[in-house]
Amino acid sequence: MLFHVRMDVKIPHDLPSAEAAEIIAREKTYSHELQRSRKWRHIWRIAGEYANYSIFDVTDNTELHEILSGLPLFKFMDIEVTPLLRHPSAIREDDT
Amino acid sequence: MLFHVRMDVKIPHDLPSAEAAEIIAREKTYSHELQRSRKWRHIWRIAGEYANYSIFDVTDNTELHEILSGLPLFKFMDIEVTPLLRHPSAIREDDT
Amino acid sequence: MLFHVRMDVKIPHDLPSAEAAEIIAREKTYSHELQRSRKWRHIWRIAGEYANYSIFDVTDNTELHEILSGLPLFKFMDIEVTPLLRHPSAIREDDT
Amino acid sequence: MLFHVRMDVKIPHDLPSAEAAEIIAREKTYSHELQRSRKWRHIWRIAGEYANYSIFDVTDNTELHEILSGLPLFKFMDIEVTPLLRHPSAIREDDT
Amino acid sequence: MLFHVRMDVKIPHDLPSAEAAEIIAREKTYSHELQRSRKWRHIWRIAGEYANYSIFDVTDNTELHEILSGLPLFKFMDIEVTPLLRHPSAIREDDT
Amino acid sequence: MLFHVRMDVKIPHDLPSAEAAEIIAREKTYSHELQRSRKWRHIWRIAGEYANYSIFDVTDNTELHEILSGLPLFKFMDIEVTPLLRHPSAIREDDT
Amino acid sequence: MLFHVRMDVKIPHDLPSAEAAEIIAREKTYSHELQRSRKWRHIWRIAGEYANYSIFDVTDNTELHEILSGLPLFKFMDIEVTPLLRHPSAIREDDT
Amino acid sequence: MLFHVRMDVKIPHDLPSAEAAEIIAREKTYSHELQRSRKWRHIWRIAGEYANYSIFDVTDNTELHEILSGLPLFKFMDIEVTPLLRHPSAIREDDT
Amino acid sequence: MLFHVRMDVKIPHDLPSAEAAEIIAREKTYSHELQRSRKWRHIWRIAGEYANYSIFDVTDNTELHEILSGLPLFKFMDIEVTPLLRHPSAIREDDT
Amino acid sequence: MLFHVRMDVKIPHDLPSAEAAEIIAREKTYSHELQRSRKWRHIWRIAGEYANYSIFDVTDNTELHEILSGLPLFKFMDIEVTPLLRHPSAIREDDT
Repeated sequence: MLFHVRMDVKIPHDLPSAEAAEIIAREKTYSHELQRSRKWRHIWRIAGEYANYSIFDVTDNTELHEILSGLPLFKFMDIEVTPLLRHPSAIREDDT
Repeated sequence: MLFHVRMDVKIPHDLPSAEAAEIIAREKTYSHELQRSRKWRHIWRIAGEYANYSIFDVTDNTELHEILSGLPLFKFMDIEVTPLLRHPSAIREDDT
Repeated sequence: MLFHVRMDVKIPHDLPSAEAAEIIAREKTYSHELQRSRKWRHIWRIAGEYANYSIFDVTDNTELHEILSGLPLFKFMDIEVTPLLRHPSAIREDDT
Repeated sequence: MLFHVRMDVKIPHDLPSAEAAEIIAREKTYSHELQRSRKWRHIWRIAGEYANYSIFDVTDNTELHEILSGLPLFKFMDIEVTPLLRHPSAIREDDT
Repeated sequence: MLFHVRMDVKIPHDLPSAEAAEIIAREKTYSHELQRSRKWRHIWRIAGEYANYSIFDVTDNTELHEILSGLPLFKFMDIEVTPLLRHPSAIREDDT
Repeated sequence: MLFHVRMDVKIPHDLPSAEAAEIIAREKTYSHELQRSRKWRHIWRIAGEYANYSIFDVTDNTELHEILSGLPLFKFMDIEVTPLLRHPSAIREDDT
Repeated sequence: MLFHVRMDVKIPHDLPSAEAAEIIAREKTYSHELQRSRKWRHIWRIAGEYANYSIFDVTDNTELHEILSGLPLFKFMDIEVTPLLRHPSAIREDDT
Repeated sequence: MLFHVRMDVKIPHDLPSAEAAEIIAREKTYSHELQRSRKWRHIWRIAGEYANYSIFDVTDNTELHEILSGLPLFKFMDIEVTPLLRHPSAIREDDT
Repeated sequence: MLFHVRMDVKIPHDLPSAEAAEIIAREKTYSHELQRSRKWRHIWRIAGEYANYSIFDVTDNTELHEILSGLPLFKFMDIEVTPLLRHPSAIREDDT
Repeated sequence: MLFHVRMDVKIPHDLPSAEAAEIIAREKTYSHELQRSRKWRHIWRIAGEYANYSIFDVTDNTELHEILSGLPLFKFMDIEVTPLLRHPSAIREDDT
């Protein structure tokens, strides 16, 4: 089941830079694992912003929330979730 | 080059239903052709809304606009475009 | 799987009143059937507005969209969907 | 009498983590008591957000405010209240 | 129990003026009755707008909705309801 | 002359609690005096929020501003003022 | 007593042009009279918009509303009123 | 003197298409003349929208308004004007 | 050439009060000089807010920006500029 | 390929002024280089605001993001990107 997610990252400017770097490194590892498992199906950077649009393919709302709330950057993000489904005009078979 | 597009369709309630049906049928054909050419890479329905999120893969802004302004439903749509690029954490090779 | 849905109804003032009444009657029957099947788990009127908050319990996003887009009043509604899950502090066993 | 409440939690990043943990523990106990008394009738987590939708069943506006302003996390929350009533299409007898 | 209500009136410009006048006359009678019963406790015009702020004193949410949805101008209004209670600094005894 | 005022209080979480308590105590005294003089005619708590709706009866805009800017909590408030007048449908004689 | 007023004019495109012209002519006469009486102290066009910022000098909120609701274009305007007073840094004697 | 202008065109769907085409043709001629006179210095289409960003170089606010309110499509446009000036980091000599 | 300016002042609560007082004193002097030169033509306090509406009469956009960015409080202000011109219904000769 | 970019700068008031000055100096150098390479084609200050409108001419979305995310002030900016293309009414040959 697919979900569209927008994530906006806002790291406080007074967070020590070593702490920020460590969180960002863990974020990357965490994202790689979920992409390899095919649960985090797409991730695109939004031009000019510290933000991304992503597509998740999960079993249900609970699994989606566990993934998102487990993001190392979760407490510094604004997240907006939109449930998706197959569009009646879609022709790809592997996109739902 | 990838673009994220949200389309919200608002057909006036006093448009004759035959006219609406004819436009929607042309819209579907138009979308199929662009999906087959791989320019309209993804299209997903947003749950509960007459709206979609789409991903376009085009040569430049001009081509994107020609495609969008050529949509048979264009005059009944609100369209919002966001330029995308490869995310530094992305692992898929075929997603940019 | 639970979803929170807000529906705002805006019937155009120039819609013939017999046509409006017929749609509203079909809406009521449609809602009753879905409530009896337990898919439309809750529906509450918002005080002072022609609007409701509802909770749906469906298999997936696709089923939710089929239900909502099948509403006789669908074309006269603004609909906003929010995916829900069990809250870690919840104590009821029958509420997810 | 039913009320729909949305709560968004925003804990300042510079709050000592022990202090945050202690407040969150008290919040959970407080919520459990109100759920057991049936005043806090439903609580659902919103997917991807540190937020919930809740339904309260209280005697009047004053009782609702006492409950909400007594939340240990109250000063770190944005709260939005909407008064509800039985929907004319509702069929459940135990939902008002 | 007190509620704060804002009403914004938007009469379509193509509504026949006799029809509009008849609705407005009924609105006035309706409001007078409710004010005399003390359920519509206050009504003030907002300077420069076709709008009012009102305070209602009703038994519960259901009664409030019955009053508001029965307004002859209801279908031409945007209505926003806010539940009120006695303020801890209030000194008047007759204002809750 | 009547004015409708909404006040939202936002006390910074890092303000020492003794300092906050002292300001709040002065606020209460200040409000009591203005209520007794009948200039602060109504004050109601908004359910679930650290906010109030108030009605002021003052000589002119200048007096209103002197009262509001003199509030001990003024620098921690968002304030929104709306000028009111007698509504053509009002029946109370003592409400303008 | 001074008030700042923003007026945005939105004339429906299907209003007969003779009817529109007649209303606009009456609007101009009405404005001239109020400017001559010094109640409508300033009126400026906003560049690029069918809108104006105005300053009114009236006895009270009631007089302001009578003037604004008497505008021939009133039903085609969005109006926003802000009460003003002498600024503590102002040096002009004739501007309050 | 430079101004940044955003224009959004919204032609009512029930405007006869011949009338729309005639207005659009006049708009193009009007724009060409102003571009040739160098008053309308830049015009760019916004991808996916019936809208443009433009830069005008005019003598003053009055000239800008005369140009914009003279647009054949003016009554079907939302226009937003922002005054510009030379940026302290700019290096081009011909861009102010 | 006239410009309408709204200024909202937001002084951080942790700015030392002596520093704030010194800035505010310089702001007042700065404003007095500009008012005496007739460039800052009007300034009015907005009732209930730490904000003002002002009218500036300057040679061009550049001069306006130099004045505004030179305000001692500039870094603690939100500023919104609107270009004005003579209204076609205005009768005063000295107001453009 | 052209992009319209709005940048709003918000430097935290508690950033040491030497640090701020150093970043701003690097920002200027960075901007000069990109303007000389013709990638940053236009930059204009917005009157009254610490903000600019800019036009970039880049190969693709990726290059645009590299430029913007490399801005020394990037972490203190809100940035909004809009893809542009040649307007059908444009007459300049050197403006796309």
